Amino acid sequence: MCRWLAYSGSPVLLEELLYAPANSLVTQSRHSRLGVETTNGDGFGVGWYSTAPLPGLFLSTEPAWNDRNLRELSAQITAGLVFAHVRASTGTAVQQTNCHPFRHGRRLWMHNGLITGFPLLRRELSLVVDPSLYAEIEGSTDSEVLFFLALTFGLEHDPPTAVARTAGFVEAIGRNHGVAHPLQMTVATTDGETTWAFRYSSERRSRTLFHSTDITTLRQQYPDNPTLHGLSPDTRLVVSEPLGDLHGAWREVPESTCVVARGGVEELLPFGPLR
Amino acid sequence: MCRWLAYSGSPVLLEELLYAPANSLVTQSRHSRLGVETTNGDGFGVGWYSTAPLPGLFLSTEPAWNDRNLRELSAQITAGLVFAHVRASTGTAVQQTNCHPFRHGRRLWMHNGLITGFPLLRRELSLVVDPSLYAEIEGSTDSEVLFFLALTFGLEHDPPTAVARTAGFVEAIGRNHGVAHPLQMTVATTDGETTWAFRYSSERRSRTLFHSTDITTLRQQYPDNPTLHGLSPDTRLVVSEPLGDLHGAWREVPESTCVVARGGVEELLPFGPLR
Amino acid sequence: MCRWLAYSGSPVLLEELLYAPANSLVTQSRHSRLGVETTNGDGFGVGWYSTAPLPGLFLSTEPAWNDRNLRELSAQITAGLVFAHVRASTGTAVQQTNCHPFRHGRRLWMHNGLITGFPLLRRELSLVVDPSLYAEIEGSTDSEVLFFLALTFGLEHDPPTAVARTAGFVEAIGRNHGVAHPLQMTVATTDGETTWAFRYSSERRSRTLFHSTDITTLRQQYPDNPTLHGLSPDTRLVVSEPLGDLHGAWREVPESTCVVARGGVEELLPFGPLR
Amino acid sequence: MCRWLAYSGSPVLLEELLYAPANSLVTQSRHSRLGVETTNGDGFGVGWYSTAPLPGLFLSTEPAWNDRNLRELSAQITAGLVFAHVRASTGTAVQQTNCHPFRHGRRLWMHNGLITGFPLLRRELSLVVDPSLYAEIEGSTDSEVLFFLALTFGLEHDPPTAVARTAGFVEAIGRNHGVAHPLQMTVATTDGETTWAFRYSSERRSRTLFHSTDITTLRQQYPDNPTLHGLSPDTRLVVSEPLGDLHGAWREVPESTCVVARGGVEELLPFGPLR
Repeated sequence: MCRWLAYSGSPVLLEELLYAPANSLVTQSRHSRLGVETTNGDGFGVGWYSTAPLPGLFLSTEPAWNDRNLRELSAQITAGLVFAHVRASTGTAVQQTNCHPFRHGRRLWMHNGLITGFPLLRRELSLVVDPSLYAEIEGSTDSEVLFFLALTFGLEHDPPTAVARTAGFVEAIGRNHGVAHPLQMTVATTDGETTWAFRYSSERRSRTLFHSTDITTLRQQYPDNPTLHGLSPDTRLVVSEPLGDLHGAWREVPESTCVVARGGVEELLPFGPLR
Repeated sequence: MCRWLAYSGSPVLLEELLYAPANSLVTQSRHSRLGVETTNGDGFGVGWYSTAPLPGLFLSTEPAWNDRNLRELSAQITAGLVFAHVRASTGTAVQQTNCHPFRHGRRLWMHNGLITGFPLLRRELSLVVDPSLYAEIEGSTDSEVLFFLALTFGLEHDPPTAVARTAGFVEAIGRNHGVAHPLQMTVATTDGETTWAFRYSSERRSRTLFHSTDITTLRQQYPDNPTLHGLSPDTRLVVSEPLGDLHGAWREVPESTCVVARGGVEELLPFGPLR
Repeated sequence: MCRWLAYSGSPVLLEELLYAPANSLVTQSRHSRLGVETTNGDGFGVGWYSTAPLPGLFLSTEPAWNDRNLRELSAQITAGLVFAHVRASTGTAVQQTNCHPFRHGRRLWMHNGLITGFPLLRRELSLVVDPSLYAEIEGSTDSEVLFFLALTFGLEHDPPTAVARTAGFVEAIGRNHGVAHPLQMTVATTDGETTWAFRYSSERRSRTLFHSTDITTLRQQYPDNPTLHGLSPDTRLVVSEPLGDLHGAWREVPESTCVVARGGVEELLPFGPLR
Repeated sequence: MCRWLAYSGSPVLLEELLYAPANSLVTQSRHSRLGVETTNGDGFGVGWYSTAPLPGLFLSTEPAWNDRNLRELSAQITAGLVFAHVRASTGTAVQQTNCHPFRHGRRLWMHNGLITGFPLLRRELSLVVDPSLYAEIEGSTDSEVLFFLALTFGLEHDPPTAVARTAGFVEAIGRNHGVAHPLQMTVATTDGETTWAFRYSSERRSRTLFHSTDITTLRQQYPDNPTLHGLSPDTRLVVSEPLGDLHGAWREVPESTCVVARGGVEELLPFGPLR
C-alpha cells in the first residue's frame, strides 16, 4: 500500500536519508521489494523537526522518484527527526490532503495499510472523532481518520494506549458491519522527541516492519563502512522495508508489537487492541 | 468567491461558451468584474451531458486561464447542457475533490458563496447527511456538504423543496452556534434536463446572479449579431455575471428566487428557507 | 522507456481502448510486461480525431493509472483514430510539453526510445530544424526534436523517407560525437487518415512493437468473443506490447520495418536510415 | 508580467520576507499594484543560499497565494540571500522549467519583462548560446535564453558587461527582424554574495524597480518600528514594487541603471546595451 521510514538520531541531510541508500525510500517509490504494490507513486510526504514551532511538512501528489522539489529540498534540509512516506492509494484521491505524514500541533502520524470496508465504516468512525478536532480532517483517507481517532483516544498523553483503543474501536465497528479483518496497519507517530511505531493487523498477518540494530555493534562488524561511522550511537530507524542489504543491520519488528525509540534507547512492547 | 455558468439549449462547442464571450468565464477567472474576489484562480470544473450514462467532468486545480487541457477539450466537446465553475477558495484546500461541479449519479451541483463558520458547523452538518451517501463525500468544502444535504433532503425528487430545507437546516444549525448570517449562496443544479438556479443568502444580500433573456427578442433587437442567430430559441444561460455588455441580454435574478429552466421555458419562483 | 498504442478503425470509446483490455495501456503505465522500465508513470497523453479542425490532445504529468480526468474523458470521447502514450522519462523534466503525442497542424507523433547522448547532440540536432518550425519546440525531449527533424525532412509529404532521413541524420551527428548506437526508436505518426509506425534502432535491437492481425480471421477463430465482433474489419492497432493474451491476435513488427495502416489495409515496408 | 524580490542581509525566515509585509510578494501574486498584470498566478520560485554547495530552489506551477508547500517551507527556512519570483506568463507554458529563478552552478537569475517577438527571434538567440551550455536549457521562455546569453557573454566574470552585451545583442537581432523595441527587462542575478539588479528597456520605459534605503536612517525616522530594528544595517532589498507604504523606505531605481549590492553597500551604475 505504502512505504515509510521514521528516523531519529544525528542530524542528517535528507538527501542522505531519502536518496543515498541502495534501497532508499525514493527507490521504493518505484520498485518496492516487499510491498503489496511494487509501485508507490501516488504522492509522498516528508515531515521534519527544526527550530520552528511546528514540524515542517512537504507533501506532493507527484511520484517521489520524479519530484525535483523533493530532490532540491533534500539537498538543503538537515534534521534529527524525520518521517517520510510514499503512497500507493487504495482508491482514495491523489491529493496533498491525503498524503502522509498528517500533523496535529507538533505531532506527526503516518500509516501503511488500510481499514477494510472503509467506505462502509467511515461515517461511524468519523462520528467518534472529538468534535473539537473534526474540522481539521481535510482529506478522505482511512489513515487520517485513524489519526484523529487516536488523538481522540489520548494520543497526546499515552500513544500506546490511544493506538490500542483506536485498533479496538475500528475492529468493533468493522465486525458490527461484518468485516472479518477490519484493520491492517504499520503506523509511526512522534511528538518530536519520542517515536512510537506499531505493527498490527486484525488477522495477525501484518505488513512488514523493520528497525535498525545498534549502530555500535554494526560499526565493529563493518569497520570500513563510512556511513556507519558518521552516525551517532543514538541513531534509530524504523522502516517498512530495509534500506539495503547490510547483514545484521535490520531486525524485523514482531507481529503485534510497539517500538518506542527515544534518545538512542528503544523498547519493544507487546501490542494489541483495547476495548 | 467563485463564478459559474449554467447553459442549456442548442449543442454548443465549449470553446464558444467558455472562451469566446467578451467577459467569458475564463476571463472572469482572472478578472471578475462583479465577484467578491477579482481572481478566481483556485481551480475550475466543467460538467457536460453527452450520450454517456453519466455527465462528463473535467476538474483541475490550475487556474482556468492557463490550463491547456481545458483549451484543448473546449475545442473538441459539444454539448447541449453545460455547467462550468471557476473557484476562489475561502480557505479549504485547492484539490480536484474541492472543485465544482460535484456529481451524484446524473445530477450536478455548483455553488458560489459560503457557509459562515463552516469549521464550527461542519461536523453537525455532516452528521445529517444520509449514511448511504456519506462515503461519497471526498473533499472538504462547505459546497459539497450543501450538495449532500440537499440530496439527503430530496434533491432527486423536488429540488426547490430540498434546497429550501437545506437552507433552513444550515441556518438553524448556524444560529444555534451564534452565527448571525450562516448562508450565502447562488447554486445551480441539474439532472441533465432541467436546471434549477437559486439566489439566496441569510442576510438577503446575495451574490449576483443573472439569466439570459429571450433570444427571439434579442435577435429582433440585434439583427446583425451572428452569435444570436446561431442559437436556438430554447437557449438559456444562468450566470454569476453577464458574459458581455449586450444591452438587454441579461436580467438580474431577484433576491430569494429560484429559476427553473427546461426546454426553453424558464420560470422564476420565490425561494426561502424551509424548516 | 515508454509505451504507446495507435488505433484506427471503428469509432471506439476511449475507455474500451485504454482501460478495458487485460494488459491495457493504463495497466502498462504501472506494470509494463515488456518495457525497459516496468513503470511508465512520468505523464501520459492521448490524441484523437473528431470533427474539429485539429486533433484533440489531453496531456498530463500525472501517472495515467491515477488520473481521474483521463478516466472521465475516456468515458465520454469516441474516436476512430487514437494515439495514446505513457511516459517513462529518461531524465528530462516531467511536464506537459514533454508528453507525447506531439502535434503539428493535423499531424501527431509519439516515440518510445531515445537518442543516446542527447545532451551532447541536442544543439546540433536543433539547428537543423527548419527555422520556421523552431519556435514551436516547447519541451526538452529528444522525442520532440525527432519530430521536428522529421517535419524538416518532409514528414508532411513522404513520412517513410522523412523518418529515414531523420534516422540517418541523427546517426551521422551521433557518430561524429563518438556515440556508437545513437538511435533507439519505435515511432508512430499520422495525418488523421494514414498511420505510419516505425521500428528501428542503430544497433538493430529495437524496442518491441506489435500489430494486430486481421480481425476477420480472429473472429472465425474466436466465434464467441464479443469484442472482436464489435470491431469493424478495418480496425488496426499498433502497440508497444500486446494488450492481452489472445492467441494469434498480435504479430511482432520485424526489426527495421515501417508499418503503413490505412483504411483497414496494412503494409510492412523495410526501413533503414537514409543519408 | 512578473514580480520579484532580491534580499540580502541578516538571515531572515522566508515567511517574514514573503508573507508578512503588507504588500508582500505573495500578496502581489494575486493583487499586484504596479504590475502590467494584476495577477501573477502562473507559477513561482524561490532560491536561497545555505551551507549546501548549490543554492536551494523551490519552483512550482501553482499560484503562490494558494501553495501550501511554499507556506510550510517559508516557516522552516532561514537564509541571508533570497531570490523570489511570481510569474505572469506572456504565452509560454506554465511548467517548473519556465519558473524563475534559473540556476547555473551557484548563480541565480530572474527576470520581469519580455523579448518582443521572441518566437521570431528565439532560434537566432539560442544559436549564440555557448554550445557547452546549450543542453542545460530546459524551458521555453525568453527569460531563460537571456540568462544563457548572459552566461555566454561572461556573466560569471563581469555581470554588468555580460548583461550589457546581452541587451545589445538582443536589440541587434530584434531590429534585424524589424522589432522596434526588442527588450523589456528588470533582471536580478547573484553569485551568492553580490547581487546585481538591472532596469532597462529598449524604449526606455522600463518596468518599475525599487531598492530599499539605508536601514539606519529609517530606524531614526521610525524609532518604534520593531521590524526595522530586527534587521542588520547591511540588509538590502531590490523589488519590482514596494512591499509596503513606509514613507522613505523605498527609492525607485532610475531608468537604465544597474544596482550592485554587496555587504550592505550598494552602488548605482549607469547601464546601457553594448555591442
